[in-house]
Amino acid sequence: MRIARFSIDGNVAFGAVEGEGTVESGALVLDIIKGIPYGDFELSGTKVPLSKVRLLPPVLPNKVVAIGRNYAEHAAELGNEVPEVPVAFFKPTTSVIGSGDAIEYPSFSEELHHEAELAVVIGRMCREVPRQRVKDVIFGYTCANDVTARDAQKREKQWARAKGFDTSCPLGPWVETDLDPSDLTLQCTVNGEQRQLGRTSDMIRSIEDLVVHITEAMTLLPGDVILTGTPAGVGPLNVGDEVAVTIEGIGTLTNKVIKRG
Amino acid sequence: MRIARFSIDGNVAFGAVEGEGTVESGALVLDIIKGIPYGDFELSGTKVPLSKVRLLPPVLPNKVVAIGRNYAEHAAELGNEVPEVPVAFFKPTTSVIGSGDAIEYPSFSEELHHEAELAVVIGRMCREVPRQRVKDVIFGYTCANDVTARDAQKREKQWARAKGFDTSCPLGPWVETDLDPSDLTLQCTVNGEQRQLGRTSDMIRSIEDLVVHITEAMTLLPGDVILTGTPAGVGPLNVGDEVAVTIEGIGTLTNKVIKRG
Repeated sequence: MRIARFSIDGNVAFGAVEGEGTVESGALVLDIIKGIPYGDFELSGTKVPLSKVRLLPPVLPNKVVAIGRNYAEHAAELGNEVPEVPVAFFKPTTSVIGSGDAIEYPSFSEELHHEAELAVVIGRMCREVPRQRVKDVIFGYTCANDVTARDAQKREKQWARAKGFDTSCPLGPWVETDLDPSDLTLQCTVNGEQRQLGRTSDMIRSIEDLVVHITEAMTLLPGDVILTGTPAGVGPLNVGDEVAVTIEGIGTLTNKVIKRG
Repeated sequence: MRIARFSIDGNVAFGAVEGEGTVESGALVLDIIKGIPYGDFELSGTKVPLSKVRLLPPVLPNKVVAIGRNYAEHAAELGNEVPEVPVAFFKPTTSVIGSGDAIEYPSFSEELHHEAELAVVIGRMCREVPRQRVKDVIFGYTCANDVTARDAQKREKQWARAKGFDTSCPLGPWVETDLDPSDLTLQCTVNGEQRQLGRTSDMIRSIEDLVVHITEAMTLLPGDVILTGTPAGVGPLNVGDEVAVTIEGIGTLTNKVIKRG
């Protein structure tokens, strides 16, 4: 099931996406969910065309834990070794935007990069999750763009600003709850031109590894998000660009880059 | 004014602290605040002894932005240079505990360290704050302990686990809203023995510098917290230890270290 979060007439709700096609196709309908979708939930039967709502980030995370250098070719393209221990960092909730929202080019950077990533959405409060229970704590998957001020990342030893500025964490367009994430095509285009193409099967650490590693240290809450790293091909974003992250079986996350106003 | 957050009979509220003495003295009384203390608020006149409530972290941050290596002697004691750009990282909300709560020794570390710090609590949603407006966005100040798994910090290039594990961010005991933070004594004791002693006037970057630097990149929300770095003297914490951070004009934040159960 594809679960979107949206606003209509000032109200925020979750809905199950019905129909086939892209967000822009006009062919999709939302069946509004009663309450929140973590745990058991019911569909209301009240339907609204997706074209009539404003899509929001599909989850409201308490935290986003992101993993760096989890694809060997990407580590190599930036001159980095594959790390012995996963590189884990946070993106703050104030960085999260949805599909269709604008990425604001930060004032302190002149080298903004896209990083297409598979995002794991957590469904249950958990810590110290054993490997064989990881699938039980996952709610679903969505597309992410770990937008990075590459010059600031190089200058600043920790990445709070370089990867945590406002609008640096596009997520969406919705969460797919029925998906085997182990071997999916992951693509990034800028203005329709392909920049990144990878397969999730090339991750150095699997989703199981990452959930075990993170929850060894910290509690994850429903709606928390794990970004699983980006494949090779990262490159510049400029004001006016439209960047799209497409993951097989999920859909396409699209954002325009604008000047921060 | 000292503003505490607490629970009593399952209800959570803020209160203004009245009287003189420590948390343990039995001499303090809370005047319960109507609603939340950001912006204008009223005292209810309903009073409850502080000894009858459970103190909670004095704020419920959306994010905690911490600054590393902001005292020259501390940078030197760990063999680090003073950074050209402030080292900014996040501690997640799941790491925050209050005074009297237990620090759980993490399973992935054998070298837990205390780091006493002055914490700045933000009172207003803000971004791109000009230097001369910094004081307008600050709600007050509290004591913090940036508890660190030093071995994991050395092994792991980014510090999400080393400084973000559950219970790694004690804050409290309350927020002092009337305070000049520019030259305060900052002390850390372990089992009553002094380990760290510094003055906030020795910060390399001032609070103004830090707020400008952080909000150049990201929006801060009411209740967000900035940790301003630790002076020299960091050292080990062991199971059974009682660690106390005392800041002149604020009070004492006390936490016991326990085995993670």
